[in-house]
Amino acid sequence: MAPDAVLPTDSPAAAVPAPRQHIRLTSHPGQGSAGAPTIRWGAADPIERGPVVGTTTHRSQRNVIGTHSGSYGVYRALAVAAGNLERGHRADLTDTSPTDVVGPHPQWADADRIVSIDPWGATVASVYAAQIAQGYDIRPTIAVTKAHIDLPEIRQAMAFLRLRPDGRVLLDNGSAVVTKVALEPVWWLPGVARRFNVSEGELRRTLFEETGGMYPELVTRSDIEVFLPPIGGQTLYIFGDPRDLANPEVTLTARIHDECNGSDVFGSDICTCRPYLTHAIEECIQGAQQGGVGLIAYSRKEGRALGEVTKFLVYNARKRQVGGDSADKYFLRTECVAGVQDMRFQELMPDVLHWLGVKKIHRLVSMSNDKYDAITGSGIEVGERIKIPDALVPADARVEIEAKIAAGYFTDGSVPTESDLAGVKGRGLD
Amino acid sequence: MAPDAVLPTDSPAAAVPAPRQHIRLTSHPGQGSAGAPTIRWGAADPIERGPVVGTTTHRSQRNVIGTHSGSYGVYRALAVAAGNLERGHRADLTDTSPTDVVGPHPQWADADRIVSIDPWGATVASVYAAQIAQGYDIRPTIAVTKAHIDLPEIRQAMAFLRLRPDGRVLLDNGSAVVTKVALEPVWWLPGVARRFNVSEGELRRTLFEETGGMYPELVTRSDIEVFLPPIGGQTLYIFGDPRDLANPEVTLTARIHDECNGSDVFGSDICTCRPYLTHAIEECIQGAQQGGVGLIAYSRKEGRALGEVTKFLVYNARKRQVGGDSADKYFLRTECVAGVQDMRFQELMPDVLHWLGVKKIHRLVSMSNDKYDAITGSGIEVGERIKIPDALVPADARVEIEAKIAAGYFTDGSVPTESDLAGVKGRGLD
Repeated sequence: MAPDAVLPTDSPAAAVPAPRQHIRLTSHPGQGSAGAPTIRWGAADPIERGPVVGTTTHRSQRNVIGTHSGSYGVYRALAVAAGNLERGHRADLTDTSPTDVVGPHPQWADADRIVSIDPWGATVASVYAAQIAQGYDIRPTIAVTKAHIDLPEIRQAMAFLRLRPDGRVLLDNGSAVVTKVALEPVWWLPGVARRFNVSEGELRRTLFEETGGMYPELVTRSDIEVFLPPIGGQTLYIFGDPRDLANPEVTLTARIHDECNGSDVFGSDICTCRPYLTHAIEECIQGAQQGGVGLIAYSRKEGRALGEVTKFLVYNARKRQVGGDSADKYFLRTECVAGVQDMRFQELMPDVLHWLGVKKIHRLVSMSNDKYDAITGSGIEVGERIKIPDALVPADARVEIEAKIAAGYFTDGSVPTESDLAGVKGRGLD
Repeated sequence: MAPDAVLPTDSPAAAVPAPRQHIRLTSHPGQGSAGAPTIRWGAADPIERGPVVGTTTHRSQRNVIGTHSGSYGVYRALAVAAGNLERGHRADLTDTSPTDVVGPHPQWADADRIVSIDPWGATVASVYAAQIAQGYDIRPTIAVTKAHIDLPEIRQAMAFLRLRPDGRVLLDNGSAVVTKVALEPVWWLPGVARRFNVSEGELRRTLFEETGGMYPELVTRSDIEVFLPPIGGQTLYIFGDPRDLANPEVTLTARIHDECNGSDVFGSDICTCRPYLTHAIEECIQGAQQGGVGLIAYSRKEGRALGEVTKFLVYNARKRQVGGDSADKYFLRTECVAGVQDMRFQELMPDVLHWLGVKKIHRLVSMSNDKYDAITGSGIEVGERIKIPDALVPADARVEIEAKIAAGYFTDGSVPTESDLAGVKGRGLD
């Protein structure tokens, strides 16, 4: 950024053809905000906490930066522009309430324990019924439903008699019965800043500048503390009774999985993502059948949150480098292209576990030291760590898994040395 | 929006604690833009067209609104704030160039044919090598690589001898050999506006207002025509020789698939998404083995671009309504919650086909009338339409498929009547 300051006093708003009405470029304290509810993040009582209002319809009600639906807010804007969606549509929330009650848990009343989810996001229609009746446009940021899921890998586990249907968790037809939860990000900026050990001002400014100027209110409205970022959220799949997640006496099997479309959907053999995910689902089903509860928390953080374009550029660089794809150069190639090895920031990840009331994960189906450190660092106990069975690691994915083990991933075997790593080779680009 | 205009002349930027330097709230014509290359969208020659520069490092070079990596730009900003990523990191693009050449095709030189992708996005390191050497921070928005993909459904098709390995498209071990491509959205706003039959000013203003004020430059900088929106992009999986996609003499089997994480990854039985996708992959492999070429174009448009929270709210409303989940109420429940049936906007979807040079899709593995209309309306010929085999439709997904057929989805059977639809029932919430 250039060091000179140019505040937009001379904005050529008139350059926009045929304005329908005056455009309000950004919002300011005291400007029509009389009707915006105050948010007291971490207050135990939802009325005292106050609703999150991200409506684009009634600007005076807004108490956040950004809007609902994560990055899909851009599509909603397109729908309005195209004339498909009526400006000011209010969601009819009839019959949409959660199929299962989650919380409230004591963790919800600790402002710094949950900073990236609105704990009341699933129940706005009931806890803020009075405000909605008064005309406030309050929308759920969490939805809870039931589903049957049917995966070929689970059918295979049944064929090999590793899993047996019980009519409750796993049906005769191979379907598993789950509760599933979708969550949108709701960031309380003071708490997010503390997680990353930066000042709130520095966080706000960097979010603004490094996105090329998204949401000037990040820097002009320090009085608005909540940001609905235009990013993907999370999905939870719960096997067994969701209430058991908060009971440390019930064995919890859990995997925290970060999206990898290429493997999760298409079965790319360069990584272990889908095999590990489906193994975790098998573990969750077994655990729930034995009286425990299972949890898959799936985050939309494609390619270590670098995005898929960067990921594919790295694949090419790995496979073309002198000496070919090898485990000792695994992280280096990502760093050369992206500047970092990873942008997933497990710092915010435990929030969803605290939302569920989790105090102990008895069986963590993950080898990631970053995830383990984030979970235990947030005060959740972890028992056993379950590695991916060797038989499930695709040949071309050995480069990744060995590099990660050398870098600190959990293993019950030996940690490869530098020269071991140099000998772990992947396929070329063919 | 309130009708009064308040331009941010009185922005309390000083409310941000301890600013490192003056903050530039937004950009203005003539303000340090001397170094920004001009973009002449649709120019046949890439130098005349000019590079897309979305860097956050050298503001004077920028000729777009927004930044790279779609919604992952927010994570990159977090990485800088947290001190993990050096401000101003430049990607080392060594060895990252595309594994396969795509284009240039005549379609690239038609400004209105491709409005949401930068056709030169895969080859910036070569076509803009001189500008990069001069210090311009030009990044790829497209990456092309090779992969082997291994899906249980393809192994099953081999077990039933519907597919046989040929050592080229399908290997003995069950892996299919693909070229895959990741694409970030690059919107040329004048062209996007024309696609939706709105004025550019109206589009810009609505994108700004209905996102809660994202990127004021949308309304203040009508001279900047290109927007990098913070949304998900697309991934292509190509079976056979990618060059054949542009040859209408070679049989092209193609599916345009919109993301559905619940089915694509987890096998939820409420819809046909994964079964139709894996059937399409089987068709693509067969087609490529017979001398044709196959294409899966996967778009990140979760839940009809409504996002997963809205999707799950709709599931609850469908299954709890009086009379239970039934095909005649299928679209109504989405409209009640979201205000529209669908926000996917197939209007922009054909761009990627024109980028590939596609002139004819011989076998379109899709029943969607919206997709068919968008593809043929953009000048691409469509031959046969391949419906999902009945045996692959999960029982609970009949509600969706019958409702869609009644609403115009392709079928070679009979179209259900209103009373037929009322009789197609889904499972309750259990």
